[in-house]
Amino acid sequence: MRVGDASYRTVRMEGGAVVAIDQLLLPHRFTTVTLRTHRETADAISRMVVRGAGAIGSAGAYGMAQVYAEAQTAGDGREAYITKGAARLAATRPTARNLFYALERVQKAAVEGKTPAEQAVFAREAAEAVADEDAESCRRIGEAGKALLGPDMRVLTHCNAGWLAFTDWGSALSPIYAAHREGVRLKVYADETRPRLQGALLTAWELMGEGVDVTVVPDNAAGLLMRRGMVDLVLVGADRIARNGDTANKIGTYEKAVLAKENGVPFYVAAPLSTFDPACPDGDAIPIEERGEEEVLVLSGALEDGGHGSIRLAPEGARALNFAFDVTPAQYITGFITERGVVKPEALLQGWEDAAHG
Amino acid sequence: MRVGDASYRTVRMEGGAVVAIDQLLLPHRFTTVTLRTHRETADAISRMVVRGAGAIGSAGAYGMAQVYAEAQTAGDGREAYITKGAARLAATRPTARNLFYALERVQKAAVEGKTPAEQAVFAREAAEAVADEDAESCRRIGEAGKALLGPDMRVLTHCNAGWLAFTDWGSALSPIYAAHREGVRLKVYADETRPRLQGALLTAWELMGEGVDVTVVPDNAAGLLMRRGMVDLVLVGADRIARNGDTANKIGTYEKAVLAKENGVPFYVAAPLSTFDPACPDGDAIPIEERGEEEVLVLSGALEDGGHGSIRLAPEGARALNFAFDVTPAQYITGFITERGVVKPEALLQGWEDAAHG
Repeated sequence: MRVGDASYRTVRMEGGAVVAIDQLLLPHRFTTVTLRTHRETADAISRMVVRGAGAIGSAGAYGMAQVYAEAQTAGDGREAYITKGAARLAATRPTARNLFYALERVQKAAVEGKTPAEQAVFAREAAEAVADEDAESCRRIGEAGKALLGPDMRVLTHCNAGWLAFTDWGSALSPIYAAHREGVRLKVYADETRPRLQGALLTAWELMGEGVDVTVVPDNAAGLLMRRGMVDLVLVGADRIARNGDTANKIGTYEKAVLAKENGVPFYVAAPLSTFDPACPDGDAIPIEERGEEEVLVLSGALEDGGHGSIRLAPEGARALNFAFDVTPAQYITGFITERGVVKPEALLQGWEDAAHG
Repeated sequence: MRVGDASYRTVRMEGGAVVAIDQLLLPHRFTTVTLRTHRETADAISRMVVRGAGAIGSAGAYGMAQVYAEAQTAGDGREAYITKGAARLAATRPTARNLFYALERVQKAAVEGKTPAEQAVFAREAAEAVADEDAESCRRIGEAGKALLGPDMRVLTHCNAGWLAFTDWGSALSPIYAAHREGVRLKVYADETRPRLQGALLTAWELMGEGVDVTVVPDNAAGLLMRRGMVDLVLVGADRIARNGDTANKIGTYEKAVLAKENGVPFYVAAPLSTFDPACPDGDAIPIEERGEEEVLVLSGALEDGGHGSIRLAPEGARALNFAFDVTPAQYITGFITERGVVKPEALLQGWEDAAHG
């Protein structure tokens, strides 16, 4: 997507190097890092230079391609080098399903090659395919979702489900980009999304880059906005969608869904099919990650006078609870926007059953 | 209430000086300021050294007593000095109803005196009465509300409606203090309450001082907690309660009320009768203050390495919306806790009608 006058993906390959947008410095500084070896790529994933399921998958795939390229000169140690490289990349973010899928896919493609050189070529091609397909799924989510967005509509979004979380386009923000590029003027309210503020930091930055009218609001304000009739549609992403449509997403999503239903505002979840998990029966089966309390109690960031600092938001010795996600039951969800079109929660369940019997 | 080994009010008079807890430095530093003249008192109110409706009322009353004390030496200019002093105090926080009421009450009591010295004495007595009555109303709210709190109950609160906002005891936190002092063990979840974080900063500090078990949560987490059955009761304060029970309070209160109803959790509003405004028909008639966007976009506070700093929470040039309050319709409110007991919203409306016809 657009950054200044240029167009970027969160991660791409240039020669033998992986080039990634450094998301640790956004939105205050935009810069890319060049990762010359798979070790550097693995390190960038674990330090969250690259973040977001789709972007991590692509970065992992590229890292695996680097492993095969490097392994050409490893001689007798070649097999061991590949195994160790794959393990290093897999260990970067232990719960990222896209990552494991991507690593496996690149390895499967590579072993079709007859020589180390051919394997390196096949690995690279498979990695590009992973990235292209992620970007293409997201682009299609935009195409499928843009029909929901008419002129001057006001859309509320939560957290960051934009292109920075994928290779390109994003999930929840993709329909907004698609509509905006066709000249449909929209107004977006971005929940700031405490505690990590991805809405204020990343969603606002992304939308400003594309020229979309965006206003940051405290998470507390979404209810008032809906009750005042200032929101026509809520559009969020998802981390995992159970068979029955119950949806795990960033903490606070459930609150917005309940408020949307109470106020008659349509609530849509946008996600590629890879986010749907038919093996997971419902929301109760989705474990909720609990993170360290310091994320709530202390805010770190760029100081206005330059440099980096931390502000304590609570008394010394205070305790906090920090659930990273919540689950929105399917009953609050108007529809899912996927690369294959918009699906109602009821149709989703029927679809899995048809697939099982068909 | 308790701070370390001592007991404090937010504001009190010592000799001719007003002694106030400096709320600008809380929770990181506890200290009082001594305000020797009504000018200093007025300045402390406008800089929010003293904040919260009840506390502002008491500080204003004491400031007015200072005006009468100072006026004794003003000779011919005495009347003008009093008028000017009252105007200075009234101008500190233009929307604080308690403040105007307090200033008027002290002046009415003072003019009963026959000499300047007697007027100063009467003014001082009236000011003490304002402060005592505020503290006593809040203490009674605690007595009335503590019956709702049984052993091991988990209470969610939003913003700060504690003793720091009044002269003593507070509104929403008063039942918690009353129950806790009788040995009822409670667990309190304090919404951090963006953008100004009064929950994380002040409510957590107050409760910790009294030894109440408190955990800070992001505003986004309240829904998850309720859905998981981790909250037995929601208890909040109020800024203004309309005739029909619609309640204006800190932004985000409406969200918690809707989530409480959806999850079958009782939702109580605690407030002294002075907060009820029978002349205001319903929530639509309550204007909602919109504050500057910098409160959302930039966080200022005590840096962990000492000193004071500001962290920008959004890209340079980002816009924000900052409504200070929202309105919770009466239908979401289980009951009001006042110094005269607990009242249901239906009974409230009937009460005003009975009062009008009785």
